[in-house]
Amino acid sequence: MSSDQNASLRRDLARLVGSESVLQPSDYGPYTHDATIQRGLLGTPDAVVCPPDAAALARLVAWCYTHDLPIVPRGGGSGLSGGAVPVGGGVVCGLERLNRVLDVDPGLWRLSVQAGVATAHVHRLARENGLLFGPDPGAAEQSQIGGNLATNAAGPHGFKYGPTGDWVTGVDVVLAPGELASFGGRLHKDVAGYDMPGLLAGSEGTLGIITAVRLRLRPAPQRTLAAAIFLADLAAGQRVLLELLGGGLRPAVLDFLDAAALAVCAGTFPGEVPPGSGFVLLVELDGSDAEVTQQAAELLSLLAGGEVLGIQYPRGAELWRWRASLNGAIAARHGGKVSEDICVPVEHLAEAIEAIHTLGSEYSLPTCAFGHAGDGIVHATFMVDVAREEDLARALAAGEAMLEVALGLGGSITGEHGVGWVKRHHLAAQLGPAASEAHRAIKRALDPKGLMNPGKNYPLMNP
Amino acid sequence: MSSDQNASLRRDLARLVGSESVLQPSDYGPYTHDATIQRGLLGTPDAVVCPPDAAALARLVAWCYTHDLPIVPRGGGSGLSGGAVPVGGGVVCGLERLNRVLDVDPGLWRLSVQAGVATAHVHRLARENGLLFGPDPGAAEQSQIGGNLATNAAGPHGFKYGPTGDWVTGVDVVLAPGELASFGGRLHKDVAGYDMPGLLAGSEGTLGIITAVRLRLRPAPQRTLAAAIFLADLAAGQRVLLELLGGGLRPAVLDFLDAAALAVCAGTFPGEVPPGSGFVLLVELDGSDAEVTQQAAELLSLLAGGEVLGIQYPRGAELWRWRASLNGAIAARHGGKVSEDICVPVEHLAEAIEAIHTLGSEYSLPTCAFGHAGDGIVHATFMVDVAREEDLARALAAGEAMLEVALGLGGSITGEHGVGWVKRHHLAAQLGPAASEAHRAIKRALDPKGLMNPGKNYPLMNP
Repeated sequence: MSSDQNASLRRDLARLVGSESVLQPSDYGPYTHDATIQRGLLGTPDAVVCPPDAAALARLVAWCYTHDLPIVPRGGGSGLSGGAVPVGGGVVCGLERLNRVLDVDPGLWRLSVQAGVATAHVHRLARENGLLFGPDPGAAEQSQIGGNLATNAAGPHGFKYGPTGDWVTGVDVVLAPGELASFGGRLHKDVAGYDMPGLLAGSEGTLGIITAVRLRLRPAPQRTLAAAIFLADLAAGQRVLLELLGGGLRPAVLDFLDAAALAVCAGTFPGEVPPGSGFVLLVELDGSDAEVTQQAAELLSLLAGGEVLGIQYPRGAELWRWRASLNGAIAARHGGKVSEDICVPVEHLAEAIEAIHTLGSEYSLPTCAFGHAGDGIVHATFMVDVAREEDLARALAAGEAMLEVALGLGGSITGEHGVGWVKRHHLAAQLGPAASEAHRAIKRALDPKGLMNPGKNYPLMNP
Repeated sequence: MSSDQNASLRRDLARLVGSESVLQPSDYGPYTHDATIQRGLLGTPDAVVCPPDAAALARLVAWCYTHDLPIVPRGGGSGLSGGAVPVGGGVVCGLERLNRVLDVDPGLWRLSVQAGVATAHVHRLARENGLLFGPDPGAAEQSQIGGNLATNAAGPHGFKYGPTGDWVTGVDVVLAPGELASFGGRLHKDVAGYDMPGLLAGSEGTLGIITAVRLRLRPAPQRTLAAAIFLADLAAGQRVLLELLGGGLRPAVLDFLDAAALAVCAGTFPGEVPPGSGFVLLVELDGSDAEVTQQAAELLSLLAGGEVLGIQYPRGAELWRWRASLNGAIAARHGGKVSEDICVPVEHLAEAIEAIHTLGSEYSLPTCAFGHAGDGIVHATFMVDVAREEDLARALAAGEAMLEVALGLGGSITGEHGVGWVKRHHLAAQLGPAASEAHRAIKRALDPKGLMNPGKNYPLMNP
């Protein structure tokens, strides 16, 4: 679009949803990218609109649908797959003004909020009311609950508590060509019609734009106990991981860092890292007082085999603050990183991590791995100075190769970040022809013009 | 179809999938109905086929799709909404020969089985391997895991453990027009593409036929403790229910019987029913030894308000056997029953139960209610001699009226049995126009000819 066309578009949109909702080009900066900016992904919005309510958003979608303009919904912009980036232009719809808390019913374990409420605020509301909201994706102050549902985000506590979709009983959405719809409601059980909240979970704005979510929370656990289990190497880590699972332990978190990730971050670990540590499992036990005490004893008994170099029990808050700092620390080491969130069957975790380091050697890249061991999710990370174009290209190529490795191990190209824009070339290979065609048929059914976040989370015909 | 046409169809199908897979008309009996036979629903199959494997089923679906013949998948036939009844004729596909256990990985909490494996066998396999499969719909020896997923069945333990879909990481299906497809896999987390296993959960065979499921189980709880809490009346029951929830108790089961249901079944209760009991809550606590002990103490402390007439702790197996006998006992009382599995927000449970009895008076029908209090699911039951046509018609009318009551309370026409055939007239009213159209669009996308279990779980245009 020319700048004249853009100005005319802004005037049209201002008439539609109010001029205060339509941003000026000088303010587009944050809306051109998400966290994939570190791998160089940038888009150019034709316009950026932050509607004040769902009705205005529906008018906006209707207008765009009539005028064949792509619509790119955007939550907090913390995504790691380019799902919110206007790669082909279009109208970016920022959801930050839909930030009202609609209902809090602590005694009934229910919380309803608009899509733009920050994930951290959902956690605070739950906590203040004696309840738990389980999913804990990174960047919780930045990311929004609507975006969390659109990507079906999880995080470390996803091991026990599942992804965002597992906590949602109802959603309000704007569907093409500009309809307000509600699916589900406040009920915990409802099998009337297809599970549309479930279908929208992880659909990445390609089937509709989520404007509000109704959550079913749980009573908060009385107590948590964090433990860091240090092991000599990857092989020992894999053995102990399988022993914990096979022994029936069901912690809230079962994360890991490999030797290279530990080397980057050991200095800030809240405790002593035993010498010779080459792998660490991070565990959080939770439940009633009695439950945690019993689980802690079971953990020790499962670890009695003698492979463990040491166990530390940092304060939970400190451990998870440290865990949350890993992304930044690892990125800072060499000026940036390319990280792919592959998922493999948990018995293949060590193989996947070895493959990451083999690729790192082949592509001459410093490499590390960390993630959610219990779920088989590995953040396969190649550390590069992203300002050096050639290095970045090499890291991106290594990342692409890693996706193939994941598929070869019976895994997934994305365990939690989503397909977005950056993994679209690999989706059809994972799904296979029949499942890809079913996916496309659903996309066509709900978005016949292909204008809802085009190109994202889509299995290409000829990848 | 004429009997000549039927004979010709059987010959065609025998060539396609083997003559041993094609039943003779004398054997159609069980395939003409499901558990809705008690309300008089019967179909007439054009043919009944029990394919030996998924490939044969795919050939069958392809042939039917080419020849415009409806396809009606059928699991164990224990459904309560007519989902498996060939109401408009067509080819009934019995899944009972797809009964192989594919993989058991106890240490990894995984179990893969074909769709025709009995639900009770899934429970046994889990239990024998130290694991838990949470959903426990009734008729577990008869019903099959594929049908459980197709209806997203739950049961009493669904309060803590959710419906069947929550336990499924992957499915194999036959899609129209006769394609084998796999969605998901063995991974606990996978956000590549739309959540098709989730969409198929509760789709009642209208989008595809499930041929195998991959389950993610959990370590079995060490201990369970069952308790029956007797109260004077419905109002006290509602108060105590809300106190338990608000107090943060999270039992595995939180069921109820009202006074009328208790009156029918008190004689066989495994223990003493205190005089004056007009409502009972059935609770199961589970977890580690320590957890159950602590929860039991919390339960007593929450109940200390003085409303409780008595607490009994029957052996769990005896209590749940008694609970499983309720359906039969209540049906036997007057020769049959019409029961609707409405769901309401839990704070409206007492209102819903009162409304049931008001309707019972209006329609001159003996009435009772029982169900899953914690989820707000009420089996609204009108007891009639179903052989008396006029009485049955009156009970069916009362049931229809009850669905309207549920919607008026912000509830659902079906909490766990599904829409099937018997509730199709009410689905569009619950979903509303926009959500109904989205549902229809998905149906058209995956079943353009409308041959997959036609009419079931479908929001009518002009209800």
